[in-house]
Amino acid sequence: MIDRLNSTLESEAFSRFITAVILVNAVTLGLETSDVVMARFGGIVHLIDEICLLIFILEIAAKLICKRLKFFVNGWNIFDFLIVGIALVPGAQGFSVLRALRILRVLRVISVAPSLRRVVEGFITALPGMGSVFLLMAIIFYIGSVMATKLFSDTFPEWFGTLGLSAYSLFQIMTLESWSMGIVRPVMEVYSHAWAFFVPFIMVTTFAVVNLLVGLIVNSMQEGHSQEEGERTDAYRDQVLARLEAIEKSIAQANDQPTQK
Amino acid sequence: MIDRLNSTLESEAFSRFITAVILVNAVTLGLETSDVVMARFGGIVHLIDEICLLIFILEIAAKLICKRLKFFVNGWNIFDFLIVGIALVPGAQGFSVLRALRILRVLRVISVAPSLRRVVEGFITALPGMGSVFLLMAIIFYIGSVMATKLFSDTFPEWFGTLGLSAYSLFQIMTLESWSMGIVRPVMEVYSHAWAFFVPFIMVTTFAVVNLLVGLIVNSMQEGHSQEEGERTDAYRDQVLARLEAIEKSIAQANDQPTQK
Amino acid sequence: MIDRLNSTLESEAFSRFITAVILVNAVTLGLETSDVVMARFGGIVHLIDEICLLIFILEIAAKLICKRLKFFVNGWNIFDFLIVGIALVPGAQGFSVLRALRILRVLRVISVAPSLRRVVEGFITALPGMGSVFLLMAIIFYIGSVMATKLFSDTFPEWFGTLGLSAYSLFQIMTLESWSMGIVRPVMEVYSHAWAFFVPFIMVTTFAVVNLLVGLIVNSMQEGHSQEEGERTDAYRDQVLARLEAIEKSIAQANDQPTQK
Amino acid sequence: MIDRLNSTLESEAFSRFITAVILVNAVTLGLETSDVVMARFGGIVHLIDEICLLIFILEIAAKLICKRLKFFVNGWNIFDFLIVGIALVPGAQGFSVLRALRILRVLRVISVAPSLRRVVEGFITALPGMGSVFLLMAIIFYIGSVMATKLFSDTFPEWFGTLGLSAYSLFQIMTLESWSMGIVRPVMEVYSHAWAFFVPFIMVTTFAVVNLLVGLIVNSMQEGHSQEEGERTDAYRDQVLARLEAIEKSIAQANDQPTQK
Repeated sequence: MIDRLNSTLESEAFSRFITAVILVNAVTLGLETSDVVMARFGGIVHLIDEICLLIFILEIAAKLICKRLKFFVNGWNIFDFLIVGIALVPGAQGFSVLRALRILRVLRVISVAPSLRRVVEGFITALPGMGSVFLLMAIIFYIGSVMATKLFSDTFPEWFGTLGLSAYSLFQIMTLESWSMGIVRPVMEVYSHAWAFFVPFIMVTTFAVVNLLVGLIVNSMQEGHSQEEGERTDAYRDQVLARLEAIEKSIAQANDQPTQK
Repeated sequence: MIDRLNSTLESEAFSRFITAVILVNAVTLGLETSDVVMARFGGIVHLIDEICLLIFILEIAAKLICKRLKFFVNGWNIFDFLIVGIALVPGAQGFSVLRALRILRVLRVISVAPSLRRVVEGFITALPGMGSVFLLMAIIFYIGSVMATKLFSDTFPEWFGTLGLSAYSLFQIMTLESWSMGIVRPVMEVYSHAWAFFVPFIMVTTFAVVNLLVGLIVNSMQEGHSQEEGERTDAYRDQVLARLEAIEKSIAQANDQPTQK
Repeated sequence: MIDRLNSTLESEAFSRFITAVILVNAVTLGLETSDVVMARFGGIVHLIDEICLLIFILEIAAKLICKRLKFFVNGWNIFDFLIVGIALVPGAQGFSVLRALRILRVLRVISVAPSLRRVVEGFITALPGMGSVFLLMAIIFYIGSVMATKLFSDTFPEWFGTLGLSAYSLFQIMTLESWSMGIVRPVMEVYSHAWAFFVPFIMVTTFAVVNLLVGLIVNSMQEGHSQEEGERTDAYRDQVLARLEAIEKSIAQANDQPTQK
Repeated sequence: MIDRLNSTLESEAFSRFITAVILVNAVTLGLETSDVVMARFGGIVHLIDEICLLIFILEIAAKLICKRLKFFVNGWNIFDFLIVGIALVPGAQGFSVLRALRILRVLRVISVAPSLRRVVEGFITALPGMGSVFLLMAIIFYIGSVMATKLFSDTFPEWFGTLGLSAYSLFQIMTLESWSMGIVRPVMEVYSHAWAFFVPFIMVTTFAVVNLLVGLIVNSMQEGHSQEEGERTDAYRDQVLARLEAIEKSIAQANDQPTQK
């Protein structure tokens, strides 16, 4: 019976059914944001929402029964499990946040559609190659936050009062949003040499971000390049070398024969 | 007679004439924005405008007579048809918008000039390759809008009051315009952990945009690369293999001959 | 005597002397911005400035005597001629602007230093390849300006009052500076569907700019790539084909010989 | 004894110990920014900080004893020396800045971790190739600052009062932060043609930055490309040529033999 359940779960029709349920649920979760709609059809919308959730829970339960602990080997299964699980957490405080998180269920469309899955997997495989640069940026941010807090926390507590506030302000400065008119010019009215901290910070972080970008481009170019083209070149080269070897042997043989005569 | 009309429509001289009419019309449509000019020469400007429109309508009518339904096979013809057609829609409400849309006629210069046509066709052929990433961004925007609306609609109705307003605000945040000083800092004064929603949103969307860019670069590079260079390499390789085969045959012959003697 | 003058003008020592004069003049022109310095040493600074100008005029006069009309064949000579010439234009109105333009003389350092010259020549050679995209952006800006002026000139005259003001505002919007909080949100308070004009405008212009960037990268990559590497590959391929041909001939000869015997 | 000290300093265990000390010190320097923590555990935090500093000084002293003046051959050693040295500078005025600079010690983690070291070395090796473009941007900034100061210093002293203020404002404008709403629009209210200075400035500097980026991408692509792939191609080509030579020789021998008979 488990075999039959398994083949049902992996059938095209079932996958299409789940995609449909996700899309319906996406619509109902979107409708929940409209007060007008909820005042009139609130009951139906909630009902559909609950039915969708039930279907997701049954699906994951069925998969758990079929694959047991192997279910958790696939990262996308864990992803589905967590996203559906959020809806089941009983929440007293932070209730509205948990309700808002239910919309994350729409992300399940990624785990169902292969083309989206490939894009996300492409994103994730690109991350480790950028690990060192990310670590470097984390160090720069930590140093920058500590320095900004020590230097400016007394006069500008709302921007640089604690390590966390400083890190947020420096992130804003890195994105170049209102860095000068909003933050650095006011700071420079008190500490006239503050530009000597912020301008180098902008240059270093921008340069690091640019290097991340360059690394990404170079990586995906080399991958795309070498795969297909490289295999064809290798096949051609092997053929040429094999043929040259054969010719060499034939000639050596030809050279030997006359002397044997 | 249709043959003669057809050859006229496809002649260089006619294409130059239409380009000239488009440019003249571009100037008159520009002049219409100036109150000073319209007060003095309003009549003449409107007259020229009407004449240009008449020429466009006659041109398209002639093309329709020549090519019948085949006219609509070419995307650029449909483009011309729609742009000229806008001027003929009778408008009661939204009149000023329809009048403003008439300037879109200037876009006809693209369908007339081959170099511009190629650039736009290049843009359009680049789009499907980015389809998955666009879809992913649409999903992220939908999820982000629903979450932002649920969390912040009560306290910040002008930014996150409805799904549409949230989507617009998130688009603004994605472009990094006033995201912190304008939106997130005010929101954080009420919900102090709001950065935990907005900062990841910025990171994810920026990363997706960067990946679009990387994809575009890699695509157009591989295209540009493999075309000419690849053909030359293939030609060379075919030649080498053909010659190697010829040598092999000659040697086989040479090896046979002495034994035949 | 002209030969001697010519060899002096083209000598390394003279070029170094001119570079030194440019740098000295750059410093004096910079010092002129300081009221404190000018109050004390104004006379000396002006004197040095005039001497530098005299040297430039003498240099260009000498070059004109040597090369006559051939002087104007080289673009950099015309560049020097115009920059030095600005200082000699007698100015009644717009005097302060003409005085400010004298600092452009520092640009002569580019025409003197070969490495800077190469960078600028690289920039300029990259421009024609981007001509079509530039033309397309000009068309988009013209259409956008006319539409914005027609739609919003009555209610927002300071931003969209004339074609020129609209073009400036759209340039600001293209750079994403305060586009939403500064311009589009206020406009949307009157015309609630204004986003339908501005958001597509941002997307189209950003996409066009990205394509300019991609074009630049692909171009300079192919150039850098094919030059050196391509020549080596061509040399290698010619050698392989020549050798294969020689082997073929030798074998054909060997096959012929025994039968001749 | 120096040999033993040397082998200790270069051992894996010692390098791990130093990394641990750096991380502990990073935490204590971070805790110093919290008033709550310092009020309670201020003494312990300062003590740990001093111990860490002592370890760094002993480490560098030990290295100096081992390697004498060769210590200063390695750039990373000089880097460590300067960073640790900051803490020992006795400071009367600017005391708080010097205290803030102590956090730079965390940068020592870069000189200790090989993967971070490689990233930073990659950054630094990329710089010289961009030297000419940097020099060009410096010239553009100098010219722009002098012009802006001469033209706008009287009416906008807080933005363009001195060369330094102008350079800072132009840097802000180059990053596109509030360039229009914050600076150029107010300036245009006095000098209505000010856009003719600022818009070209933005275009030129943005184009120069884009060219820096393109240069970086092309450089790192060619490096990454030619290294491994290029070596394999060279090896293959050498092999083909060697084999062709061998075949040529064999044929020459074969052609000679029959005539010798």
